[in-house]
Amino acid sequence: MALSPYHQLEQEFRRLHAFRGAASVLRWDAAVMMPRGSADLRGEQLAALETECHALVTSPRVSRLLDRADANAQGLEEWQLANLREMRREREHAIATPQGLVSRLAKATARAEIKWIEARQKSDFSLFAPHLEEVVGLLRDKAALLGKALELDPYDALADEFSPGLRSAEIDAIFTTLGRRLPGLIHEVIDLQAAKPPLEITGRFSGSKQRQLATELMKALGFPFDKGRLDESEHPFTGGLPGDIRITTRFNPNDPLSGLMGILHETGHAMYDVGLPEAWRGQPGGRDRGMVMQESQSLLLEMLICRNRPFLRYLQPLLEKAFGVSGPEWEVENLYRLLIRVRRSLIRVDADEVTYPVHIMLRYELENEILDGQLEVKDLPEAWNSRVEDRLGVRPKNDAEGCLQDVHWAVGSFGYFPSYAIGAVIAGQLYEALRSDRPALDEEIAAGQFSGLFEWLRQNVHRFGASLSAPELIRNATGKPLSAAAWLRYVEGKYLEE
Amino acid sequence: MALSPYHQLEQEFRRLHAFRGAASVLRWDAAVMMPRGSADLRGEQLAALETECHALVTSPRVSRLLDRADANAQGLEEWQLANLREMRREREHAIATPQGLVSRLAKATARAEIKWIEARQKSDFSLFAPHLEEVVGLLRDKAALLGKALELDPYDALADEFSPGLRSAEIDAIFTTLGRRLPGLIHEVIDLQAAKPPLEITGRFSGSKQRQLATELMKALGFPFDKGRLDESEHPFTGGLPGDIRITTRFNPNDPLSGLMGILHETGHAMYDVGLPEAWRGQPGGRDRGMVMQESQSLLLEMLICRNRPFLRYLQPLLEKAFGVSGPEWEVENLYRLLIRVRRSLIRVDADEVTYPVHIMLRYELENEILDGQLEVKDLPEAWNSRVEDRLGVRPKNDAEGCLQDVHWAVGSFGYFPSYAIGAVIAGQLYEALRSDRPALDEEIAAGQFSGLFEWLRQNVHRFGASLSAPELIRNATGKPLSAAAWLRYVEGKYLEE
Repeated sequence: MALSPYHQLEQEFRRLHAFRGAASVLRWDAAVMMPRGSADLRGEQLAALETECHALVTSPRVSRLLDRADANAQGLEEWQLANLREMRREREHAIATPQGLVSRLAKATARAEIKWIEARQKSDFSLFAPHLEEVVGLLRDKAALLGKALELDPYDALADEFSPGLRSAEIDAIFTTLGRRLPGLIHEVIDLQAAKPPLEITGRFSGSKQRQLATELMKALGFPFDKGRLDESEHPFTGGLPGDIRITTRFNPNDPLSGLMGILHETGHAMYDVGLPEAWRGQPGGRDRGMVMQESQSLLLEMLICRNRPFLRYLQPLLEKAFGVSGPEWEVENLYRLLIRVRRSLIRVDADEVTYPVHIMLRYELENEILDGQLEVKDLPEAWNSRVEDRLGVRPKNDAEGCLQDVHWAVGSFGYFPSYAIGAVIAGQLYEALRSDRPALDEEIAAGQFSGLFEWLRQNVHRFGASLSAPELIRNATGKPLSAAAWLRYVEGKYLEE
Repeated sequence: MALSPYHQLEQEFRRLHAFRGAASVLRWDAAVMMPRGSADLRGEQLAALETECHALVTSPRVSRLLDRADANAQGLEEWQLANLREMRREREHAIATPQGLVSRLAKATARAEIKWIEARQKSDFSLFAPHLEEVVGLLRDKAALLGKALELDPYDALADEFSPGLRSAEIDAIFTTLGRRLPGLIHEVIDLQAAKPPLEITGRFSGSKQRQLATELMKALGFPFDKGRLDESEHPFTGGLPGDIRITTRFNPNDPLSGLMGILHETGHAMYDVGLPEAWRGQPGGRDRGMVMQESQSLLLEMLICRNRPFLRYLQPLLEKAFGVSGPEWEVENLYRLLIRVRRSLIRVDADEVTYPVHIMLRYELENEILDGQLEVKDLPEAWNSRVEDRLGVRPKNDAEGCLQDVHWAVGSFGYFPSYAIGAVIAGQLYEALRSDRPALDEEIAAGQFSGLFEWLRQNVHRFGASLSAPELIRNATGKPLSAAAWLRYVEGKYLEE
């Protein structure tokens, strides 16, 4: 019997998933295992796979099948309809950008990334500027084409690739709220914390001991080591794919907490992947709901659960045992103060959760202005520095700790940054609902019992895959529309505690 | 300007090479890094890549381009003509087997391999027999179709996939010569060695020290660690691809020599890959000349160069330093006797170089008889055991050390085994020519200078890639047609020395 158009589409997208999974493992390998001199070869392999994926999604066959499946949609179940909608979404994104532009952008960003590394090392923006200009020019073309096809503003069209359905209107509303409250809040928190400074941790903590403890914690959280690995790499990330998850981290011998928090963050991503609906694996409807939901899950685990007293009550004896340490600096309360320290700092990836949105809002403003031509690339360093000084009261001494610190723009990821801050806001809203649904959550966490936490997340977020939009997911899980209110309540409660 | 048909073909095969390279790294990952529970996912990725490769080689576009390039061949250089010939060869192989049969064979061998593992563990051939029968049935169909397309006997058609151009006529001639001389020779050697038994090595040798020494030796040999890695895996192999070579090994803490010899063997494979013509990388004409030449290179390095006195003079102080050992058992002469010990044994992979061809000749006979129906699968254990006893004077106590010891038949690799023994014979012939061209070879090796050795191999073998057939390569390098004479002279000289 011939397969229905819908089921033929499932087969095509299963093949697409296989190619993407292969590419994902190859990218992990490139970051973690591959010898340096093999980069060109790997580039050819990844380019061949990406070209194949693009050809598959944009093929006339897939177009025909989508039309025929839509015309026969009355027999389909709700999940299948959602899957069909996501398939069409993928095709619309892919087909809006002509292959020539995709390929020019790939080459320009590859060059720009290399130049960005050099420029950052030398802290010399002028090395990077012409390459960023080239990338921006191509991105403008892409944003215009994509925007036209998706009926979106250019910026929203780009952001939609990372976080489907996330729009400037929602971002602006949330950032306006945060922008009103954060400057004052940061001021208050820093004053308050200055009164009770924590004791610093000193000593050397071997990578192997840190790794052993991290593995123990990941197991306690439920990370499936039969379907995932933990390795070390220059920049921590979660790679691979659901069913073969590759977490990486970096261990600092002077600071046993930073590597650990990084791993807990990545484990949050991994547990989202683990909770996705098994039956829909490999289908567009069964994947995660974009970067904004991914970040909500990693930040929820790292910031709201783990940088908190109940978790530290569980962690503290494990730290003492793992490193053979004790003393006042290892007390729960001191660890807590160390882990929630708020500082006016320059580097986004090292920022605490209260100042973090400020870093993001700055980037969001700037990338919007660059994209629509209001700000010229050559004027970026000055605009960056003066605004950082204005918002955070500190000024970068050079561009390496200023506008050269992040790779995102070099690789063409305009529209990505908001996901981090909106993800935090979503984490706050989910956390409030979670606490109200599970009054014993703190006791469970303090006892090292995490199954209730993940059960709730699975029931309310993970199991829907991409079948709902992010705003639908939030309303579904919390009963309220997405807003910054819960996150602000959480932050105020945590950081303004007397 | 439009590309010529030939240059369009180069592009298509470059894409094929990228897919195959990706698959090769993913297979390495599966053996070395991948979590166990991710095997199904990886299976889907590899199947998608293999299907894509098959579709690419058998596409009407490639057929048309091959015909047009052949018709315009007068303008092509010799290398390009060789490349075109190899492209056509790949296409003829791929197109002769219908996709349905390829897929049935893939599934049958996947099942058979799993059952083979279980059957070997339990030493119960009956668990494996029905699966082997299914594989054999499908292989007969494949051999018939392939044989018809290539105008070859069924067995030769299968063997041609592993070692292009290797035919039963040549194999039979060589095996007849070996079969005449080896039984008597083995007898003499064992008697002679019994008079001077070596001292055994005892102690425990940590994996990390073995690894360090192995790395040092690989560097001395010229292994490019910027384009390759050394790892550990259950079964040692050389994976990846030229430009990103992944060697694996297994360290036995009680035996520091076995892991080392394994690494030297795999380094022989790797150095062949390193020496292939850079300008033809990614093209069919630029690859190695099949398993028979691959084995000639690994055996030449392991057996003829490294299991020999000059190399041991170089190695001996390194062993003493690496493991902090000394004493009569670590003297060069004792190490030499340990490493060239000849024994009547049951397991092929542990066999010495003198008895090794006997193991291969047995498998060659049996797989021929099974393929043409002369021997039934159910009668394999008895046929195996009685012939091993007849040829080697020892009889397997069970099928795990008998006909279940090798994976080859389970995965459908009929026609592969001869490559090992013919590879050894080729190594012997190359070695004789090499010694005659480089009279100072022994002194170079003893001084740890290997560049002369690999320079000769590069000049006489590696740089030709697949542009010559294996017999042409041998005649070219040695001035003589392929025969067992040189290998027999080498073995007699080495093992009958008074």
